[in-house]
Amino acid sequence: MNYRIEKDTMGEVQVPADKYWGAQTERSKNNFKIGSSASMPMEIIYGFAYLKKAAAFANCDLGVLSSEKRDAIAAVCDEILAGKLDDQFPLVIWQTGSGTQSNMNLNEVIANRAQVLKGFNISEGEPFIKANDDVNKSQSSNDTFPTAMHIAAYKAIMEITIPGVEKLQATLAAKATEYAAVVKIGRTHLMDATPLTLGQELSGYAAQLSFGLKALKNTLPHLSEIALGGTAVGTGLNTPKDYDIKVAQYIAQFTGLPFVTAQNKFEALAAHDAIVESHGALKQLAVSLNKIANDIRMLASGPRSGIGEILIPENEPGSSIMPGKVNPTQCEALTMVCAQIMGNDVTISVGGMQGHYELNVFKPLMAANFLQSARLLGDACVSFDEHCAQGIEPNYKRIKELVDNSLMLVTALNTKIGYYKAAEIAQTAHKNGTTLKEEAVRLGYVTPEDFDDWVKPEEMV
Amino acid sequence: MNYRIEKDTMGEVQVPADKYWGAQTERSKNNFKIGSSASMPMEIIYGFAYLKKAAAFANCDLGVLSSEKRDAIAAVCDEILAGKLDDQFPLVIWQTGSGTQSNMNLNEVIANRAQVLKGFNISEGEPFIKANDDVNKSQSSNDTFPTAMHIAAYKAIMEITIPGVEKLQATLAAKATEYAAVVKIGRTHLMDATPLTLGQELSGYAAQLSFGLKALKNTLPHLSEIALGGTAVGTGLNTPKDYDIKVAQYIAQFTGLPFVTAQNKFEALAAHDAIVESHGALKQLAVSLNKIANDIRMLASGPRSGIGEILIPENEPGSSIMPGKVNPTQCEALTMVCAQIMGNDVTISVGGMQGHYELNVFKPLMAANFLQSARLLGDACVSFDEHCAQGIEPNYKRIKELVDNSLMLVTALNTKIGYYKAAEIAQTAHKNGTTLKEEAVRLGYVTPEDFDDWVKPEEMV
Amino acid sequence: MNYRIEKDTMGEVQVPADKYWGAQTERSKNNFKIGSSASMPMEIIYGFAYLKKAAAFANCDLGVLSSEKRDAIAAVCDEILAGKLDDQFPLVIWQTGSGTQSNMNLNEVIANRAQVLKGFNISEGEPFIKANDDVNKSQSSNDTFPTAMHIAAYKAIMEITIPGVEKLQATLAAKATEYAAVVKIGRTHLMDATPLTLGQELSGYAAQLSFGLKALKNTLPHLSEIALGGTAVGTGLNTPKDYDIKVAQYIAQFTGLPFVTAQNKFEALAAHDAIVESHGALKQLAVSLNKIANDIRMLASGPRSGIGEILIPENEPGSSIMPGKVNPTQCEALTMVCAQIMGNDVTISVGGMQGHYELNVFKPLMAANFLQSARLLGDACVSFDEHCAQGIEPNYKRIKELVDNSLMLVTALNTKIGYYKAAEIAQTAHKNGTTLKEEAVRLGYVTPEDFDDWVKPEEMV
Amino acid sequence: MNYRIEKDTMGEVQVPADKYWGAQTERSKNNFKIGSSASMPMEIIYGFAYLKKAAAFANCDLGVLSSEKRDAIAAVCDEILAGKLDDQFPLVIWQTGSGTQSNMNLNEVIANRAQVLKGFNISEGEPFIKANDDVNKSQSSNDTFPTAMHIAAYKAIMEITIPGVEKLQATLAAKATEYAAVVKIGRTHLMDATPLTLGQELSGYAAQLSFGLKALKNTLPHLSEIALGGTAVGTGLNTPKDYDIKVAQYIAQFTGLPFVTAQNKFEALAAHDAIVESHGALKQLAVSLNKIANDIRMLASGPRSGIGEILIPENEPGSSIMPGKVNPTQCEALTMVCAQIMGNDVTISVGGMQGHYELNVFKPLMAANFLQSARLLGDACVSFDEHCAQGIEPNYKRIKELVDNSLMLVTALNTKIGYYKAAEIAQTAHKNGTTLKEEAVRLGYVTPEDFDDWVKPEEMV
Repeated sequence: MNYRIEKDTMGEVQVPADKYWGAQTERSKNNFKIGSSASMPMEIIYGFAYLKKAAAFANCDLGVLSSEKRDAIAAVCDEILAGKLDDQFPLVIWQTGSGTQSNMNLNEVIANRAQVLKGFNISEGEPFIKANDDVNKSQSSNDTFPTAMHIAAYKAIMEITIPGVEKLQATLAAKATEYAAVVKIGRTHLMDATPLTLGQELSGYAAQLSFGLKALKNTLPHLSEIALGGTAVGTGLNTPKDYDIKVAQYIAQFTGLPFVTAQNKFEALAAHDAIVESHGALKQLAVSLNKIANDIRMLASGPRSGIGEILIPENEPGSSIMPGKVNPTQCEALTMVCAQIMGNDVTISVGGMQGHYELNVFKPLMAANFLQSARLLGDACVSFDEHCAQGIEPNYKRIKELVDNSLMLVTALNTKIGYYKAAEIAQTAHKNGTTLKEEAVRLGYVTPEDFDDWVKPEEMV
Repeated sequence: MNYRIEKDTMGEVQVPADKYWGAQTERSKNNFKIGSSASMPMEIIYGFAYLKKAAAFANCDLGVLSSEKRDAIAAVCDEILAGKLDDQFPLVIWQTGSGTQSNMNLNEVIANRAQVLKGFNISEGEPFIKANDDVNKSQSSNDTFPTAMHIAAYKAIMEITIPGVEKLQATLAAKATEYAAVVKIGRTHLMDATPLTLGQELSGYAAQLSFGLKALKNTLPHLSEIALGGTAVGTGLNTPKDYDIKVAQYIAQFTGLPFVTAQNKFEALAAHDAIVESHGALKQLAVSLNKIANDIRMLASGPRSGIGEILIPENEPGSSIMPGKVNPTQCEALTMVCAQIMGNDVTISVGGMQGHYELNVFKPLMAANFLQSARLLGDACVSFDEHCAQGIEPNYKRIKELVDNSLMLVTALNTKIGYYKAAEIAQTAHKNGTTLKEEAVRLGYVTPEDFDDWVKPEEMV
Repeated sequence: MNYRIEKDTMGEVQVPADKYWGAQTERSKNNFKIGSSASMPMEIIYGFAYLKKAAAFANCDLGVLSSEKRDAIAAVCDEILAGKLDDQFPLVIWQTGSGTQSNMNLNEVIANRAQVLKGFNISEGEPFIKANDDVNKSQSSNDTFPTAMHIAAYKAIMEITIPGVEKLQATLAAKATEYAAVVKIGRTHLMDATPLTLGQELSGYAAQLSFGLKALKNTLPHLSEIALGGTAVGTGLNTPKDYDIKVAQYIAQFTGLPFVTAQNKFEALAAHDAIVESHGALKQLAVSLNKIANDIRMLASGPRSGIGEILIPENEPGSSIMPGKVNPTQCEALTMVCAQIMGNDVTISVGGMQGHYELNVFKPLMAANFLQSARLLGDACVSFDEHCAQGIEPNYKRIKELVDNSLMLVTALNTKIGYYKAAEIAQTAHKNGTTLKEEAVRLGYVTPEDFDDWVKPEEMV
Repeated sequence: MNYRIEKDTMGEVQVPADKYWGAQTERSKNNFKIGSSASMPMEIIYGFAYLKKAAAFANCDLGVLSSEKRDAIAAVCDEILAGKLDDQFPLVIWQTGSGTQSNMNLNEVIANRAQVLKGFNISEGEPFIKANDDVNKSQSSNDTFPTAMHIAAYKAIMEITIPGVEKLQATLAAKATEYAAVVKIGRTHLMDATPLTLGQELSGYAAQLSFGLKALKNTLPHLSEIALGGTAVGTGLNTPKDYDIKVAQYIAQFTGLPFVTAQNKFEALAAHDAIVESHGALKQLAVSLNKIANDIRMLASGPRSGIGEILIPENEPGSSIMPGKVNPTQCEALTMVCAQIMGNDVTISVGGMQGHYELNVFKPLMAANFLQSARLLGDACVSFDEHCAQGIEPNYKRIKELVDNSLMLVTALNTKIGYYKAAEIAQTAHKNGTTLKEEAVRLGYVTPEDFDDWVKPEEMV
């Protein structure tokens, strides 16, 4: 491989000649060989690109950066956002906990790429744009990284998570309406209970997701506050007046999302409670989805020895050894995603609780786990929706058979003959393998006519 | 011990003669010898007392219960709420996951106590009030237990958690104002950084708690929805028309809290996402408080070999072997509480994610963990506030000494001489153990006069 | 209430006249009003009593304590271990993280009680036994509290957890043998699969618990190492030579358990990885038991609309509204315990990971969570065993019906006609609602005779 | 793109013409668009390659597969293990929870690649090797996937985790010896305490890792048991006699690791407690490493306003805004890894606890999280060792200054003048800002000569 020499305040470093990054990126690459390479999420890189461009605009407006430099910086940021420089960001999550070298990776790539766009070789002459003094002007890793986190997290929620969950929620709500009149047995404690309709059952799932979406949206205002302008410790040292407000406006403009400058920059650097808060809502959705997916696979279980009240799409052969087997694979993928998010919530909380003084140094960890959860949740909802939920159909024959046999229809008699006599009827029918009606009449508690009048599953829902 | 015979649908059971509970309570007591006795939180019992009274009123209004029975039931509920019958609730958390026997415990105690208040012996004649048919009228364990959970949880948050956190938040905010001008060194990565004021540092903590309180309050609407009226599976079987709305109104009236009937009763029985959601906010507060308490003990560390920038109250001798030692014990209690809440969040999520069909059967577990967290958090904030936060004082001498020595003041030179030269000054001073000014001048980058003009900690905050 | 005045190095404190505790206990009681009162587990108090007695013996043997004082201290320790002084320990878990005041609580109670046993009033004259100088001789909170933790934890595992799990394991293993020939349908992905026997299914559960017990026993050597002798920071300052070895021998003798002095006292004070390690095994058992209990309730579900392959004991009426309902309540209690232990594991890990320098200050938290898990797990296994597992019986009729109908018996044809033709048979039978045999013959792939020869559930297990 | 048509039991599927995979892989690829593509860990693919080869050998030995087919299968497995076919495995973690389609991915690639190695086109004529009937012979996804998990997990532990942790442990142990005589102040509760040596402090860290390694090794026997031979539900249907033992021997031979056939195949399919158990030990190591890394960064904090007792290597410029700043970045990367593992432990436990009947369907999730933890832990230890631990050096000047000033040296006087007088000396010195000696003499408790004789830090360790 060919190398060129790059320098930082610690001295010289060899860098691959065909890459735009500089000395600090290369140091970090060499010092942190932990896990897969280039694991820092691209969403964070793009978040940085938005904010570097916004900072250039704000700095220019406030008179501390020339418009020529602004435009040069913005041009590279646009290239990054267009995905043209994805291979220029080789760093891993497991680096400095402030993400300093990822910030420098951006600064270096932007500076060197600008130099090339200007028609020079990277190391030729005095750089037109300087990584620290120009690209990073009015910034610190300590306020840029959390800003990139919020941009990436907010975008992922808006573009992936919420649409995915809403799509599934809409399907479940539509199915709830469609099957509003299909009376089926209820089950509590996994045991036969009084009836309800399939639509009612599904409406509970839809309601869970509605509540989860509301909870998630409740967290967005905190996430919309960005740290940029706090610089090193939150005081905003080395920033021009009103820079924080202006740069947030530019970020809002470039992303189309309602970002504002954080009310308290000290909080925004030293803690990432907005990430903790928002991921808490993702975790709540995971809790809900685990219940829903688990119910659906139990309801669809069989085909002959399970519950079998609903049918779900058959998407692929289910077994490499058992011919003809079909499995609730979408439920499985979704519940695995839920388990992942449960653990990610602990990871994020453990990271969030361990900040020290003016800085939390679990930033890349928190960002990576958040983004994984946000994406998995959205993707898995779409997959589950398209390949499972949309195809849910009642197995009418089975549903009717089970509800008709149910001993818990006896509950309708409580208000007529009291709980104790009703219990005696149910217990006797259970023991004798008979029907409620037979025993109700035999015990002399109800006439056949009254029984038929009083015990109507369709009126018990 | 003397016993009397009680009966339920399964047959006869011996019950201690001096207790009001009946057969089902006794069965549960015998069948679940797990952990400490009587571990079901009293807050849940009181939640039940509110709802049993409310149900009696609603049932009476709607014509299915006589006013005589209503008043008899209400009278016992009032006794329970006054704490007069605390020894009548012997059951444990680790029982049926619907809390059915705790519901029956209430039903039985209310029925038998009403009998006695009426002037009869417990087992004398036909009971005036029947446990299942009267006290439990229009109810099921499946809708009463979650209602009791929401009442207990909501009350705990309003009466203990929020006031406790607000008290501490107010102190931190006041201290932030008081010490707004005390310039001190900042620390990022635990390393010396640019300065800020002690007030700014404390304002970050206050902001964290404000965000946490807002997040907690965001969860209250979900928690205000109660399941009552759903009965067995959410359909409201065996309830009079409009009972659900009316009973919620009575509960709101009796508790003084804004409870409403749940929009979707199926969700309210089968899932406890409101508990998951609200505890998520408690966990967020725990994350924040862990950071705050940890910072404070580090800032107060010493007295001679630590950071020592603040002084905190000396509340007790700190060591049984080291004479004169004083420790940040309130920080320790608080961080232990935070760790507990971190784990409780997992417990609650694991319980919440495993409901089946129409019922979640992790109710007592979820309730107990929630109530422990809500109380510990509130109590610990009060304790921390009174015995630590209120007594925080700057160690002015130490603060000044450290800020004056700091190499990171060099950051002020970035905009004057550039990042690279500034770095050279700091590195040289670090290596030589000299001051920034000496090296800045010696290197010829800054005149002494400019240095004094440019590097002023008090202007860097 | 009457008070007497007690003194410590910080001054005077009013203490209830009828209590043996002194100034430091009272200070802690007043300074930490967090959660329920007296929440420090009694097992920790008893652990302290063992070690205080052992220390007195070791100190005496090594010439630094008179035999008269030794005997006086030992006499009170014996009273504590006999449960006679349980009301003398009013402190909470949420105190100083080293448990210093609980150590002092013991020191004070022992000193004052010894004074009384000697025939004096508590505050009369110079104390015969001094809390710090005699009872605490050669000790620090920093080495006594972790020693008390290990004693309490080890005892709980040996006396409650292991016997409880072994009891359940034995029942499951016996049932596995008893039902070794009951052929039933298998289920994978909750879907019908090839058959196995009920005994085989149960043997999997028994194997899980055997592995769990082995894992738990693997952790005991670490737990057998005790910190005592390390005193303040692990160096053993102020202890006579060989004291650490001798005091461990006395603890081993008094408890009947194989305690030894820790190889590295610095580790033993600054970290509680032995607690983390051992609780990890409890968590593994919780993971196993959750699976087992969940399976059992699904297998027992019904009575008419579930799986219904096994019958479990009917222990109590299951519903306050649905007459005659019976529920798998022991499964529910057990799975709630499992969820609790899952969370406790996080709590303990979060506590364990946050030690600072020479001391971990999450000791009471870690101890309390550990002891709760150890006890709940043992108790819940006994309860589950006695009220559920021992009563498991096959529902032979249902089992036979389901296995005979199963489409997955087709798997036996793989080696005869290949996976693809076998799949075609199963899919066609599924579509037509017919039997495998009908379709196998109709498709011309198998003769009726061969089918009967090749497809025998009892030979597929 | 060019496509060819592949078939499975559900019909035809278009597959990219240049890929070896078949219909089922393609279906899974299309049905599960969740998260990053091809996220199934390559270690699992390699685990499969080992077992497919071993199965071919065992099948051949036992007379159910020709040696020609065996060799053809083995040849492709060897190519896979050589990394030549890495781009043939496009599936994600979030698929069916049994990993069936990843098993089929292997079966299909091996079958088609064998066809090509034989000189045919993929779809030309009757396949020489059939995916289900030959490659998958005597196997099911249900026993192959867990076998691949154990192979991958065991290898990762042996090749990455243990060597990484041992390397760091050795460095810490060597440093403990090197600095065995460097007396420094101890700190408990973050407050000044009695002295110890730097070597002693480091020895505690080394001991933690030794215990952790022992705990990890304790889990290996469970992990060495492999499910292969259980096929669909654990009964071993469709396997020749002794196949399970023989195939395990081949796997042991090919991997060089001590794999054996699982004692209980039902446990091995339905639960993955071995993964839970082993990851529990990884989590314990994470708990230890978090404490160690945190201590080291606190000890190295400064350079002028922190503790500063040790120096650690300066690896990269620490700040994009603060010139000359150096940070404990390796500590940060390591503690982020620890937080990740804490969460992964919850993910794995949540997956492990939710198996149903004969199969746990959280396999890919559990495998992926385990492998991430195992690798991150090993890699991070190596990185931390090479770039931080090996470079730890005492800051002798600072260490001496702090220990000499310490008020806790007074503890040495306990055994001479009693705890109370010693406390008075320390408190007075603290109040007056004087030395212990000055106050000890002034108070008349100790002569200057005795003080010098009695209070020697170097004799207190």
